[in-house]
Amino acid sequence: MDFGIDFKDAELLDEAFTHASYVNEHPREHLKYYERIEFLGDAVMQLCVSEYLYRRYPGMPEGKLSRLRAAMVCEDSFSKFAKECNFDEYIRLGKGEEKANARQRPALLCDIFEAFIGALYQDQGKKIVESFIAKVVFPKLDLGWFDHLLDHKTELQELLQEKGEVTITYDEVKNLGPEHNRMYTMTVSADGKVLGKGNGHSKKEAEQAAANVALKTLK
Amino acid sequence: MDFGIDFKDAELLDEAFTHASYVNEHPREHLKYYERIEFLGDAVMQLCVSEYLYRRYPGMPEGKLSRLRAAMVCEDSFSKFAKECNFDEYIRLGKGEEKANARQRPALLCDIFEAFIGALYQDQGKKIVESFIAKVVFPKLDLGWFDHLLDHKTELQELLQEKGEVTITYDEVKNLGPEHNRMYTMTVSADGKVLGKGNGHSKKEAEQAAANVALKTLK
Repeated sequence: MDFGIDFKDAELLDEAFTHASYVNEHPREHLKYYERIEFLGDAVMQLCVSEYLYRRYPGMPEGKLSRLRAAMVCEDSFSKFAKECNFDEYIRLGKGEEKANARQRPALLCDIFEAFIGALYQDQGKKIVESFIAKVVFPKLDLGWFDHLLDHKTELQELLQEKGEVTITYDEVKNLGPEHNRMYTMTVSADGKVLGKGNGHSKKEAEQAAANVALKTLK
Repeated sequence: MDFGIDFKDAELLDEAFTHASYVNEHPREHLKYYERIEFLGDAVMQLCVSEYLYRRYPGMPEGKLSRLRAAMVCEDSFSKFAKECNFDEYIRLGKGEEKANARQRPALLCDIFEAFIGALYQDQGKKIVESFIAKVVFPKLDLGWFDHLLDHKTELQELLQEKGEVTITYDEVKNLGPEHNRMYTMTVSADGKVLGKGNGHSKKEAEQAAANVALKTLK
């Protein structure tokens, strides 16, 4: 992981990559595990992402900002960032956890990403954290990484209801393929008028896709 | 509200104290309401409180840090800070909301507190926010403001289970008074041994009080 970052306090970096199970197996080394520094890193990420979205999208209503933040600041996204930075290679795990393949578990990778951010913040301050996530996190926004996590149905509902009461319905148009690999097609309608159609491997996925199509048409 | 703070951008301060209902009633003034700046302020508070707790309590495990943060960063606490700063007097509300007494609603007061923090952060940066909450928020920690919001039952369970399996039970000892104003007394026991006794207006409240007594005895 070469991001041109040199830690002043190397122990902080060790702490960020050390799981409690490793500490328990090495009682004489008086090691610290990552949970406290992760507590800090979680709040650092929340602010840095909020600030970025707030400034980048000056006209975006709060509801959409919150949904976008929730899509970026979540286990699914953080575990992917951790993998991309090869953080999984550096985790110090106990033998039992190693056997249980914890190293590839999204919840653990997410923790490690937050812990790293916490350590970086504590060691070097907010500006350096911002330049790190400007490389690792923010470009993903334009690459569409978070689109599938956004709740298009809620957004559509909010948009339609701005103009008064409206009845939104989702209807199954068809489903194709065998049970274990079925593809659903759903439409979304407002007061009986079809606004969009979408496909997905579940009805819920197809509904989200339909709502997304409707949103793009309406805007 | 005299905290010796002069806003460079006075519009930002207006925005923080303006409710959507007021904007709707004054369509020609092209005003902004507080929701976007509140989105930012919420994350600012989360980080400032986390950082303070992380540094002040270097030995505190993550679980307790998280519970303490949750008790400080919540509607109940923020609405009290807002009242203490007399923020309720400055809110710009629509007539309907005013009639419905929204000005004294904890959820709104909490929003306004977050919005003010967001505006202060955007206008003057993190250091000024920190010195503001060092006056308004952190002293409350030593005054015991957050104690009733802490989850003593969870903390007791974690402490007792550190030493291995243990069965924790809560038992009602008595209840006194009429139904609408009953006072419950509960005890908490570990493997049958009573560790604490507490009173409350609900069984849950009495259990928390009992757990708190047990914690103080055990430490």
